[in-house]
Amino acid sequence: MAKNKNIIGIVGLGYVGLPLALEFSKKTKVIGFDLNEKRISELSKGLDRNSEIKNSKIKKNKNLIFSVNKNRLNSCNVFIVTVPTPIDDKNRPDLKFVKKACETVGVYLKKKSIFILESTVYPGCTENFCVPILEKISKLKYNKDFFCGYSPERINPGDSKHNFKNIVKVTSGSNKKISLKIDKIYKSIFKFTHKAESIKIAESAKVIENIQRDLNIALVNELSIILDKLKINTNKVIEAAGTKWNFQKFFPGLVGGHCISVDPYYLTHVAKLNKYNPKVILAGRKINNYMKFQVVKKFLLSIKNRKISIKKAKILVMGITFKENVSDIRNSQSIEVIKMLQRKKLKLDIYDPLIKKNTIEHNNKKIYLIKKLPKKSVYDAILILTPHDKIKSIPVKKILTMCKKNFVLFDIKNYLNLKIKEYIKL
Amino acid sequence: MAKNKNIIGIVGLGYVGLPLALEFSKKTKVIGFDLNEKRISELSKGLDRNSEIKNSKIKKNKNLIFSVNKNRLNSCNVFIVTVPTPIDDKNRPDLKFVKKACETVGVYLKKKSIFILESTVYPGCTENFCVPILEKISKLKYNKDFFCGYSPERINPGDSKHNFKNIVKVTSGSNKKISLKIDKIYKSIFKFTHKAESIKIAESAKVIENIQRDLNIALVNELSIILDKLKINTNKVIEAAGTKWNFQKFFPGLVGGHCISVDPYYLTHVAKLNKYNPKVILAGRKINNYMKFQVVKKFLLSIKNRKISIKKAKILVMGITFKENVSDIRNSQSIEVIKMLQRKKLKLDIYDPLIKKNTIEHNNKKIYLIKKLPKKSVYDAILILTPHDKIKSIPVKKILTMCKKNFVLFDIKNYLNLKIKEYIKL
Repeated sequence: MAKNKNIIGIVGLGYVGLPLALEFSKKTKVIGFDLNEKRISELSKGLDRNSEIKNSKIKKNKNLIFSVNKNRLNSCNVFIVTVPTPIDDKNRPDLKFVKKACETVGVYLKKKSIFILESTVYPGCTENFCVPILEKISKLKYNKDFFCGYSPERINPGDSKHNFKNIVKVTSGSNKKISLKIDKIYKSIFKFTHKAESIKIAESAKVIENIQRDLNIALVNELSIILDKLKINTNKVIEAAGTKWNFQKFFPGLVGGHCISVDPYYLTHVAKLNKYNPKVILAGRKINNYMKFQVVKKFLLSIKNRKISIKKAKILVMGITFKENVSDIRNSQSIEVIKMLQRKKLKLDIYDPLIKKNTIEHNNKKIYLIKKLPKKSVYDAILILTPHDKIKSIPVKKILTMCKKNFVLFDIKNYLNLKIKEYIKL
Repeated sequence: MAKNKNIIGIVGLGYVGLPLALEFSKKTKVIGFDLNEKRISELSKGLDRNSEIKNSKIKKNKNLIFSVNKNRLNSCNVFIVTVPTPIDDKNRPDLKFVKKACETVGVYLKKKSIFILESTVYPGCTENFCVPILEKISKLKYNKDFFCGYSPERINPGDSKHNFKNIVKVTSGSNKKISLKIDKIYKSIFKFTHKAESIKIAESAKVIENIQRDLNIALVNELSIILDKLKINTNKVIEAAGTKWNFQKFFPGLVGGHCISVDPYYLTHVAKLNKYNPKVILAGRKINNYMKFQVVKKFLLSIKNRKISIKKAKILVMGITFKENVSDIRNSQSIEVIKMLQRKKLKLDIYDPLIKKNTIEHNNKKIYLIKKLPKKSVYDAILILTPHDKIKSIPVKKILTMCKKNFVLFDIKNYLNLKIKEYIKL
């Protein structure tokens, strides 16, 4: 069978690359390559520090080699790049990892090789950014000697419901024959695929998925700002609207991480290059970026309203990762809130059951964590930012026990849904 | 049974009031009141000019009286107001019909009467705008002598799938007892209801439903502008993105009518009064309002590109109502497009199988319609704006037969999905 002849090189073994490498290795030979020696050493011992894959599943497998040695890629004929695509400090695409990956793959590209990108990029990136690098390094001709494809990852960290058996994997290729071949490669591990008509269509599809989500959260965030002024409970409004057949329930909150808060800028970048300044998309980004200020403003106001001295207040913050049930702190807006409170000299205890270390570093700033919650009334205010399941499982009684007599409990996601005057929500 | 004691007065017999009056009359006595004598005379003859209700269903019914005579409302104890809530030329809520309805109902309000508003309004409107008028005219005290409720209509013109048996009707009342009573009234005709905790929550829910839809269409409109510049087919992108489990398919197009394009301004009005200038919601409105210019621009450019003289071109425009399968032209963006083309002195034939008259008036401008499509090649360009099912059922071959040898076919909704160079989509 043709597919058994493929040797797949996965470049980048993060949230996307690792599960892909594991799944492909059930069908064919896989070289899992990553520049990060620590990551490779941990994976070789069967350990995923992202806790997305059970350690028992990263078992030794004669089809799968984890390596920091580029030369291992020499045996591959299919290269799948799954590296991060962040933005720089001016919200422009930062393609340094993609560039590095192309430079690496370029060296090992042979006649009939296929290069597939899975990272989220702007439409046109695979063919206009990657291909020239690949051609230059390999001295091979695109769509004659080697071929390309784009197949966007749909990994949702912290979500075990969506997997190889039930998600639809979008595939595309640089010509008809290759797109069929690429689709076949993915069909060997995904139950469902969708062949997009072109690489650009597949690239665009990925980026608009996250833009739609970003914008819909931005809308409920804006609604929550308006309804808050009118003293109307946003969550109750969304619940009522949600009884309409075509209403999509989204809830207000902080939007961070390395997908939803980043991907829109990839499209707006290319739009601006083409002389269109996006209005709706950027308005959404603006509101979502503003929400950390709204959280801080509302929190401090509530403390003041309860006549608690902000300077003396002892505060507990719970949940600091970028979203619930992941240990990832990249671009976490919860941490942005913490930093803002710290800059105002507030005394914070910071607790996150998903972070094992006592100290973490976030953009060159150290954050100290407490590992155990007190059993006595210690806090003037509690701020729950990222309510992991492990936080949700703490009994309300225990949370209230930690509070002083006069207190504020600000639960931005409203999961506690208490009906006491001390309880604040977004 | 309590509900049989109710005599319900429906004020305003349009899209919302008529079906409500018919349905309630199966359970209790109903007075259907409308200021429009022509409407009452037609309804009395069993004719709905909106074609939403089959004429046979508007049959004589001993429980139902249609009347222009206000005094008929004297027998009622429950008043349901279903009047239009448009905006003025500065995009501010125009509550003249609500005001008039309150003044009418105020006269007949008695002790224990219930006033229910169904029209889309801003949060707070029922209690802050209607109640003072009702109190003043009736000399009765709110929540002591008479009571209020808000139950948003969820009528979707041209949609027969959603009806009394499967939609959830949101209800609310001015106190706990009354909200139960109002819910019971609606439960007599709706299979499902959702009791909102307050009138304001119900008011907010209605307005955010349409805002969400408006914004999501605005997003795909903005995407279509960007993707068009990149020469990428938006519909194919949406199709690919639509294979993700949480992606909601919306398609680019003109957004008009008296709900989606109007309701957002009700919330932004009250937000501005409360010193918040909505960014996301208004950015969405701006894009959707801009789309008529995008349509005209693209259409004229396509004609030029095919070297057809714009001044001499003979053009057919199909579908002019505000959305598919309705005969309603209020705030139709298709008509705005037509007017823009007419201002540029283009020669237009205008065709809409859902409009029976030869001439219609739209904001003091007359528009002439052709009633039969030609069988010969007559047109340099065809522009399909609102593809009713009756337009969709015209064979492609027939459409192409009407075109000259060199032509443009612009189908803004892309329903034809042709693969010829003359075919243009948004």
